[in-house]
Amino acid sequence: MNNVLDFINSHRDDYVAQLETFLAIPSISALPEHAGDVRRCAEWCVSELQRIGLQHAALHETPGHPIVYAEWLGAPGAPTMLFYGHYDVQPVDPLELWETPPFQATVREGAIYARGAADDKGQIFMHLKAIEAHLSQHGVLPINVKVLLEGEEEVGSANLDTFIAANADTLAADVVVISDSPMFDRDVPSICYGLRGLAYFQIDIRGSSTDLHSGSYGGAVANPALVLAQLLAQMKDKAGRIRIPGFYDAVVDVTPAERAEFARLPFNEKRWAREIGVPKPFGESGYSTLERKWARPTFEVNGLLAGFTGEGAKTVIPAVAMAKVSMRLVPDQDPATIGQLFEAYLKKLTPKTVTVKVTHMHGGKPWTTGFDNEWVQAAGRAIERGFGRQPVFVREGGSIPVVSTFQQVLGLPSVLFGIGLPGENAHAPNEWLDLSNFHNGVLAAAYLYEELARARQQPEA
Amino acid sequence: MNNVLDFINSHRDDYVAQLETFLAIPSISALPEHAGDVRRCAEWCVSELQRIGLQHAALHETPGHPIVYAEWLGAPGAPTMLFYGHYDVQPVDPLELWETPPFQATVREGAIYARGAADDKGQIFMHLKAIEAHLSQHGVLPINVKVLLEGEEEVGSANLDTFIAANADTLAADVVVISDSPMFDRDVPSICYGLRGLAYFQIDIRGSSTDLHSGSYGGAVANPALVLAQLLAQMKDKAGRIRIPGFYDAVVDVTPAERAEFARLPFNEKRWAREIGVPKPFGESGYSTLERKWARPTFEVNGLLAGFTGEGAKTVIPAVAMAKVSMRLVPDQDPATIGQLFEAYLKKLTPKTVTVKVTHMHGGKPWTTGFDNEWVQAAGRAIERGFGRQPVFVREGGSIPVVSTFQQVLGLPSVLFGIGLPGENAHAPNEWLDLSNFHNGVLAAAYLYEELARARQQPEA
Repeated sequence: MNNVLDFINSHRDDYVAQLETFLAIPSISALPEHAGDVRRCAEWCVSELQRIGLQHAALHETPGHPIVYAEWLGAPGAPTMLFYGHYDVQPVDPLELWETPPFQATVREGAIYARGAADDKGQIFMHLKAIEAHLSQHGVLPINVKVLLEGEEEVGSANLDTFIAANADTLAADVVVISDSPMFDRDVPSICYGLRGLAYFQIDIRGSSTDLHSGSYGGAVANPALVLAQLLAQMKDKAGRIRIPGFYDAVVDVTPAERAEFARLPFNEKRWAREIGVPKPFGESGYSTLERKWARPTFEVNGLLAGFTGEGAKTVIPAVAMAKVSMRLVPDQDPATIGQLFEAYLKKLTPKTVTVKVTHMHGGKPWTTGFDNEWVQAAGRAIERGFGRQPVFVREGGSIPVVSTFQQVLGLPSVLFGIGLPGENAHAPNEWLDLSNFHNGVLAAAYLYEELARARQQPEA
Repeated sequence: MNNVLDFINSHRDDYVAQLETFLAIPSISALPEHAGDVRRCAEWCVSELQRIGLQHAALHETPGHPIVYAEWLGAPGAPTMLFYGHYDVQPVDPLELWETPPFQATVREGAIYARGAADDKGQIFMHLKAIEAHLSQHGVLPINVKVLLEGEEEVGSANLDTFIAANADTLAADVVVISDSPMFDRDVPSICYGLRGLAYFQIDIRGSSTDLHSGSYGGAVANPALVLAQLLAQMKDKAGRIRIPGFYDAVVDVTPAERAEFARLPFNEKRWAREIGVPKPFGESGYSTLERKWARPTFEVNGLLAGFTGEGAKTVIPAVAMAKVSMRLVPDQDPATIGQLFEAYLKKLTPKTVTVKVTHMHGGKPWTTGFDNEWVQAAGRAIERGFGRQPVFVREGGSIPVVSTFQQVLGLPSVLFGIGLPGENAHAPNEWLDLSNFHNGVLAAAYLYEELARARQQPEA
């Protein structure tokens, strides 16, 4: 292992330069005009996987963006890790808020700034470097490795489940490893044992056939923008509780034990609020901020658009008003069921003075696992060796829907081994990744493969 | 008078071609990039006023867009009409909904389609043609004429009141004539005796310093777009009544007599709703559609913008959310007072989890007049001669704030002599003006000057 560690430590600067190349490709999956860039990024991954010594590295077509797969199966008898990541990134608007160009990575104050730095290119790259270090120094890895990279994570992974189901034999493994989440805090490495699910919708309200003059018609017709506001306002009560009938029926509430664990974590709510610039936190009554973020479902408005939004004043009654809304879900809520409940409630509330259309955009199931399983424990040891500290066990408010697919379709447990940091602006301007975490992450990943091999040699817990 | 009428009738087609030139200038006062076009339009008006025989035609600078003034004072002893109009137009977005380009006027099915066709270039042009007809045939007009055209009506006439106050002697007259409103209906010419006022605001809500990932933060911070929706929803109750405390205090309610007059008008509510494409009308309980449009105040959302509004899904909690809102006011509501009441109510409702900023964009006072005065009666006779039908007396839901300035600063009554039609899309794509109304309007304007001269010869009512 010393050779591997030396190799990693001596290439620290090279890794940053190499990562910049990966980050320079604007693989924005949401925007059709970037489809070519997404493909170029997939091709870059294929050639990089080949270069570091994986086999059968190839791009697999889907009805959307391509999936990349590669493997190294030279450790018969050892466990097999299926590593999953995504090479696509979020859109970059509002562009004017970026301090440096989103696809021209810039290092400042120990962090690398670029779209995808944390989510998820930087974290994929950490594993590629750990694999490369093992193979270049020993010609072998301590475990078998399968790498699966998708290009549609940021747009709902529409084609991933089909690919997994169709390639279940190829993807057979013992454990899934995913690095696509933040650590609990700087110097507080963590293992994540729970994720929220997602249900995302677009609401379109139409009043008149064209925009109307607010003088000639105002007061005599429903205003679609106001109707939309009234509908959205009825989604949550003043205590922050979601009013969709049946919404909470399947929710598994936070246990007293979990609540006690959360309360023990070194979380400074005032600092957290200051860092994101909110006057004060707000959420569902009766729950702490960590509980609200990790273990309670949400209703959020992600976008609003109606009428005149330029500079100045235009006296118009908009013909249409649009909202993008989404709900984060917790075990055992099901996105399809929640979608039905939401649509029924919205339609019941909508007055007959307008028409409403609800588009179901995408959904993903929530997930939790026991954190005493052998793989999670192995990951804990790897983190301790890479970062010099024991990890804490946390949940995460975001969604990685594929985790529940791996569980249901392949019967595989997942280990969430993330090295981002809170405030990394994953879906906002000025996304960044801490380079010291990145470096420790490469070491921890190199240790992880060894620890996963060792886990199988030990009696199961 | 026969020469004048013959002249008008024989130039019918020429007028349309000439009007197209006027409509081709994109004098959008709201958009800074069109400032040059607005000035070019003012210059076009000056040269046209000179060409038809008015004197002292000139462009007057203001801190905003220029004001155009010209006069013909060759009828000593006869009354003086101050004609007011505006040469600026509304923005054209959404451009893709225009069937033909907004600044390339197109005639189809007896109407001319272009931005400004009805509001207000077409109606200004009607008077220019009537003046030209008199002067070209007789070398004189039956009355003295002063023409005042502004370029900021669509953005709140910020500099007009100052200009009027500073030039009160120049603008001294007996009556103001304005043609900037629709007729009650096709074949139902009308005189308007009441206008609503306006108070227009922008609301900006800020939560966090940048957009946040809705997974990592969702449920633990206030969502500015949802807060905005909740605030807007509290502006009106289910009965369509505005909830701003004190909002109705100064409202002069519709009188039983007026209510009876409105009810007698040939208004087909079903046809009206079908024409604008709304599923059904909606407004304040206890009032008819005409009462709601003309004689009751409103609260409208004119624009909404927050977060991600492109195609697809982006899981973001917006840092900011914006609404443009406006209220139409009725006698004796005062826009400044209403602005204070609105801002106080909004701030009281806003939770401490976000910050709110209210920008007062512009305001205008409501106006009504008795319709038995000599000038209104003269206008009625002119319309009857031009259109072959007696006019009905109506109110209008829109705002022409200068009407109350003329009353307060110059002590002048106004006659609202509009020849647009309902559904003319004044502030929407595909604005149009009926050409048969335009032609009858030129005739009626020519008669109007004669009738105004005659009014002064009769004993006052």
